[in-house]
Amino acid sequence: MVFTASLDAAPRQVDLILTGGTVITMDGAHRVLRPGAIAVDGSAILAVDTPEAVAAQFTAPDTIDTTGKIVLPGLINTHGHAPMVLYRGLADDLALMDWLTRYIFPAEAKTVSAEMVAAGTRLAALEMIQSGTTTFTDMYYFEEEIAKAAKAAGLRGVLGETIIKFPAPDAKTPADGLARAESFIKTFVGDPLITPAVAPHSAYTLDSSVLLACRDLALKYKVPLITHLAETQDEVRIIREQSGLTPTAYLESIGFWAPRTVAAHGVWVTDEDVAILVKRGVGVAHNPESNMKLASGTAPVPKYLAAKVALGLGTDGAASNNDLDMFEAMRQAAFLHKLESHDPRMVPAPVALEMATMGGARVLGLEREIGSLETGKRADLIVVGVNRARQTPLYDPISHLVYASRGDDVETTVVNGQVLMRDRKVMTLDEASVLAEANRLAVLISQAVETKAAR
Amino acid sequence: MVFTASLDAAPRQVDLILTGGTVITMDGAHRVLRPGAIAVDGSAILAVDTPEAVAAQFTAPDTIDTTGKIVLPGLINTHGHAPMVLYRGLADDLALMDWLTRYIFPAEAKTVSAEMVAAGTRLAALEMIQSGTTTFTDMYYFEEEIAKAAKAAGLRGVLGETIIKFPAPDAKTPADGLARAESFIKTFVGDPLITPAVAPHSAYTLDSSVLLACRDLALKYKVPLITHLAETQDEVRIIREQSGLTPTAYLESIGFWAPRTVAAHGVWVTDEDVAILVKRGVGVAHNPESNMKLASGTAPVPKYLAAKVALGLGTDGAASNNDLDMFEAMRQAAFLHKLESHDPRMVPAPVALEMATMGGARVLGLEREIGSLETGKRADLIVVGVNRARQTPLYDPISHLVYASRGDDVETTVVNGQVLMRDRKVMTLDEASVLAEANRLAVLISQAVETKAAR
Repeated sequence: MVFTASLDAAPRQVDLILTGGTVITMDGAHRVLRPGAIAVDGSAILAVDTPEAVAAQFTAPDTIDTTGKIVLPGLINTHGHAPMVLYRGLADDLALMDWLTRYIFPAEAKTVSAEMVAAGTRLAALEMIQSGTTTFTDMYYFEEEIAKAAKAAGLRGVLGETIIKFPAPDAKTPADGLARAESFIKTFVGDPLITPAVAPHSAYTLDSSVLLACRDLALKYKVPLITHLAETQDEVRIIREQSGLTPTAYLESIGFWAPRTVAAHGVWVTDEDVAILVKRGVGVAHNPESNMKLASGTAPVPKYLAAKVALGLGTDGAASNNDLDMFEAMRQAAFLHKLESHDPRMVPAPVALEMATMGGARVLGLEREIGSLETGKRADLIVVGVNRARQTPLYDPISHLVYASRGDDVETTVVNGQVLMRDRKVMTLDEASVLAEANRLAVLISQAVETKAAR
Repeated sequence: MVFTASLDAAPRQVDLILTGGTVITMDGAHRVLRPGAIAVDGSAILAVDTPEAVAAQFTAPDTIDTTGKIVLPGLINTHGHAPMVLYRGLADDLALMDWLTRYIFPAEAKTVSAEMVAAGTRLAALEMIQSGTTTFTDMYYFEEEIAKAAKAAGLRGVLGETIIKFPAPDAKTPADGLARAESFIKTFVGDPLITPAVAPHSAYTLDSSVLLACRDLALKYKVPLITHLAETQDEVRIIREQSGLTPTAYLESIGFWAPRTVAAHGVWVTDEDVAILVKRGVGVAHNPESNMKLASGTAPVPKYLAAKVALGLGTDGAASNNDLDMFEAMRQAAFLHKLESHDPRMVPAPVALEMATMGGARVLGLEREIGSLETGKRADLIVVGVNRARQTPLYDPISHLVYASRGDDVETTVVNGQVLMRDRKVMTLDEASVLAEANRLAVLISQAVETKAAR
């Protein structure tokens, strides 16, 4: 009887407990536990509570002591091109057309291959795991290689094969691209980590028939539709010349939107455009660093926030950033919109953090799975150290995450219940070989660009 | 005879050689040695040349292998308030007057003391050494404590006792402040590390008689004159109401400028104001992060560059940044002015690096002593690692310093020939005790602000 009673009271064994740190849940009540604990079993979060309450209910063979650290949902990058890490710093400080035609396009034409995409994604995955990104959004070529590399690294991805009207490295025509996209979706639909998507490049690089075929593919498989939208004034000019409409109004006019559309950038939008995005439930991926570095313009984030557009943050490709650090995206979003709105209260730290977590989850249509630390959600979380000199003292943990911390402060990264990095040691990738492979490819990329420049 | 001959040919013994890395000299020819070496003896640079040439001429008991790393001049922070690191993140995202009156002023009134200033400067020095700043500019209270802490840490400083018309923590009246400033200058004039200065707070917080007394003190001792200038639109409004002039024109009208005037911010200046700054040889400290976070505005850096104003970068105090990382200041300067000028070619990486090195030296009137790696200059230099995942691959070292590196990548910091940090180990400060002391004071600061808020 005593034995049975004690069995009844025994804590349930789960896979992993993190306990002792400040837990920023990003749940609907914006609960912060100081200290808190999280119980993880399989891929799921079973409990987020005080250390005492979790200890009373659960036991685990693996416990991570997070005392003195901050635990928060893994960061969600809503826009990028992972393999372009290999073009990081290949060319900077150029007019956009020079940058594209003299460097990026020649480098892509000569060096994008299945092998390059796989190697580039491994490097990007290493950087993302090391900087606390647990879900990334991607549109590039050979997207199946990106999916395979992401899965091997343990990262969650919303990944779309890019379709564009020019010959692409993996598809001579948009029709070929569509076929590749469908095959890609079929391969990965239902995957626990990969959400396949279709990624028409943009309204100015595709005819309406292909844009609509992409939409149909998204509808057929109920997958996200990812595109660039209103990034530059040149894009607006091109679409206006063709249609007399803004890019957003043009896409509205052809009936482009799918239920889960992710629009990257959304810089040059009118109030009417914002209303369209709200009406169609389009999520916007805001990329403050890329938009600044390429001088694209400033997205009207205060308007998006006021209109309750689903709004996330992205880094864009590392060729125009030059990193994949979502902490920098948060800080830059906060800085940029204070400056632009002439109001230091704009995009306060909690809003920047919301954009990088729950906001991103909403943009991707994954708000029931990720974006906050709540019972029943996937266990995507990070542990951030806050005791460096440049983080001392600490008055407010959310301020510290946005204004005083960086990707390098992430100590532990967990995705879908799997510990991908622990105490800065990445478990799923061999760092030395990933870097060596990237450096080997960089030699070929340098040669490709130099050859072009010499012509 | 043989003995004498071999003595003639023997390499000269010096204190320190750094060899094997990419050396970015920032000299007049913008020489980059790949690889290069530097010989240091006492506080001076004796040679900057190829590893072979340096090895043929010099030998040293201490050699630092910099292979695969970048060696560059130490970064020069041209504006800040070091002890305010203790208010880092105390309050963010507030309207400026709320931030000042509810948090910063009460915290300063209750907590600024000689002890707090010394402890805050030790924390700031730790962060600066760890992030590659070798010279910092400061205006605060109890400036003698800042000078003593900087010297103990081994940092170079251009430090000015602040004079302001309100009662200050260390001086009840501007007259008291002037007396303190003169005493401070006398104590530190001729110091190898400390350049004493006088720091009238600003044109809107001092009467013209005190502004001119500060100028006279600068002239009398031939020291820099440091002030805030045209930071906010409110400041412009106040000065306009008083004088009908812009802040810059007002200071011109009263004859304020000294030969080495450092003007922090310079955001709200007209073309006529820029011409005044050029004519008077005033240096401008540009603080892109603080100006963004406080929504102060954007300094017209392209105009300053075109007019050849001496232009450096600063972090401002960590309460409005929230760090002292000059790498972030460089990146933000590059990003911000691309965006504002709608031109991605604006403030390219080499210009950002120039502002953080030689530009800063010119602003401070120290261009013959520091800012570049050249024979005869002081040995202020840093070694930066560039092999992390987020820094891979590397195509252009200067792009990498500005767009892909951070203070945390600094491995070794040398000031005046003294190694202050080696392989991330700070030699001149006990990190644990500096952090513990800061955390202890942070409790008092929290209480001071809470007490005020509760009133």
